Amino acid sequence: MRLRSPLKEVGEDRLVARFRELASAGLGDGILVGPGDDAAAIRIGDKRVLLLTCDMMVEEVHFRRDWASSEQIGWKALAQNLSDIAAMGGEPAFVVSSIAAPGHTDQEVVEGIARGLIACASRYGATLVGGDLVGSPGPIAVDVAVTGWVEDDLLVRRSGARPGDVVVVTGALGAAAAGLVALRRGLAEKPEAEVTRALQAHREPQPRLAEGRAIAGARRATAMMDVSDGLANDLPRLCAESGVGARLYVERIPVDPACAAVADKTSADAVALATSGGEDYELLFTCPSGAIQEIAAAVSAASGSPVTVIGEIVPGDSVTLVDARGKARSLGTGFNHFAVSRTATS
Amino acid sequence: MRLRSPLKEVGEDRLVARFRELASAGLGDGILVGPGDDAAAIRIGDKRVLLLTCDMMVEEVHFRRDWASSEQIGWKALAQNLSDIAAMGGEPAFVVSSIAAPGHTDQEVVEGIARGLIACASRYGATLVGGDLVGSPGPIAVDVAVTGWVEDDLLVRRSGARPGDVVVVTGALGAAAAGLVALRRGLAEKPEAEVTRALQAHREPQPRLAEGRAIAGARRATAMMDVSDGLANDLPRLCAESGVGARLYVERIPVDPACAAVADKTSADAVALATSGGEDYELLFTCPSGAIQEIAAAVSAASGSPVTVIGEIVPGDSVTLVDARGKARSLGTGFNHFAVSRTATS
Repeated sequence: MRLRSPLKEVGEDRLVARFRELASAGLGDGILVGPGDDAAAIRIGDKRVLLLTCDMMVEEVHFRRDWASSEQIGWKALAQNLSDIAAMGGEPAFVVSSIAAPGHTDQEVVEGIARGLIACASRYGATLVGGDLVGSPGPIAVDVAVTGWVEDDLLVRRSGARPGDVVVVTGALGAAAAGLVALRRGLAEKPEAEVTRALQAHREPQPRLAEGRAIAGARRATAMMDVSDGLANDLPRLCAESGVGARLYVERIPVDPACAAVADKTSADAVALATSGGEDYELLFTCPSGAIQEIAAAVSAASGSPVTVIGEIVPGDSVTLVDARGKARSLGTGFNHFAVSRTATS
Repeated sequence: MRLRSPLKEVGEDRLVARFRELASAGLGDGILVGPGDDAAAIRIGDKRVLLLTCDMMVEEVHFRRDWASSEQIGWKALAQNLSDIAAMGGEPAFVVSSIAAPGHTDQEVVEGIARGLIACASRYGATLVGGDLVGSPGPIAVDVAVTGWVEDDLLVRRSGARPGDVVVVTGALGAAAAGLVALRRGLAEKPEAEVTRALQAHREPQPRLAEGRAIAGARRATAMMDVSDGLANDLPRLCAESGVGARLYVERIPVDPACAAVADKTSADAVALATSGGEDYELLFTCPSGAIQEIAAAVSAASGSPVTVIGEIVPGDSVTLVDARGKARSLGTGFNHFAVSRTATS
């Protein structure tokens, strides 16, 4: 069967499902996790697991050069990959990056991207070991691939959530989305303190590597992924992998104060921004309710970050958001990688 | 110092040199080979070395969709990376690929690219374990990152060539460049046998993995790299890494019969096409002259491929091509990744 559907109508999740189908025939015994999770995981030796992931950022879709410095673009390109390593419970190791740019691009732009990659690698204990630089009619594209390591008994997949487990998120949500709104609405010119924090979250996300290690190290998490496309997109993915549903409670969602402030200034719904905006790179995980205190203590000790129980896993396959009066409301629509640009000024 | 130079004027080699400078501060003891060789090499355990490389292909620069099928685009995107693994003496293992495409792209195009990646991986014992698919205003871009393995005592760098060593190339050169000429000149409509072979070489290059293992396995090669940008570009790089010069003999260069046939039809210089065209993905290596018979036998046994001594390493830093009358001639200008497109119909 030949398929005649434009990507924007097919949607990322169905495309990913199709690629998993195509790739599955080639997967051997050593592949603990193949396509479809945050990173691939391959058994190397007795206890050691190699992690491998890649993520591309494209100008005008994922970044605008008037909204972020070259260094910030490089930082973010790596940070989103490190977040995938964090989501497997791993530690990052080696980084390669391919950059495509038009011939008229100033050398300083590409060097700035490289400096941002190196700064982010250095901050999180990874090493940039190689890359490729190619011409393009444009736009600038930055792809990063990262290897990492995790012990085989600490690896956390997306697929282990069970009814009765609690749904937990690290940190707070919505700051990065608020930063993007601030840029779109011109609030970034003379930013107040909360807007500055939102811009920082959007431009220089901090992958939750210490948090991921602590969650995995407690050995009680049943599933984990990073929140890259927004809770409204990502929790249904975790649930689909686990064959379960979830119920979230609006009032428990930890909305970042920067998100609340920007929402207030722009008459936006702070919770909708926090759940559908994406790019927070917090970690979303599930565990038995009896394990949450132990995990929270481990995360706090490792990173100082809070974790918040935002709901629970239920049988079935629906993910619902329940408001303070117990009424179900929509989770919001997620980011379609092909239909819209994150940076569009709509 | 802030640099204000467009990439096309700086050139790839100077950019790569600058990136090596930027990245060098972060390189630790375990990094046996960092940026600047065919692949990075990192010591993992006592004897085992992890290889890591990436290469991006961009529509209209590296491929045209009316000149290659989606499957061939995917195949080639991986093949050029496997060639980098071959050039280190390694075996490929795991593959991830990021694809950027406009939302209006037919799903079948992206699936075809994925099938090509998987077919190439399967052919050479590698496994596609993950990827990323993102929107872009265009052009389609395919980045591939590959991990591989090599024993620490078999790893071959670019930097070990010494005066007196012979310069050797596997297979024959120019078929891929001839395929590109055939496409540009409209010879591909009803291709004769030699043109068909040239088109095949251009569209579906065969990385020399068995050859690379045999060369490394003989433990006598002093330097190795793959010929991706043409001998005229690549040999000077090997020489620069080794701090030596080289003298090549025109009549010894193994010009592929398909290249000779296309050159004949288009009144082109077959040797210039073979040395400057690129994308052959043959292996270029050096060894003491006393080792060549042993290496040739090993390569022949492993793959059936010939190897040809095309010149020798000399002191200094100049790379010259000597014709049958002993007269030096230009090696030709190489491919500038930013100034021109490989697929331009000029």
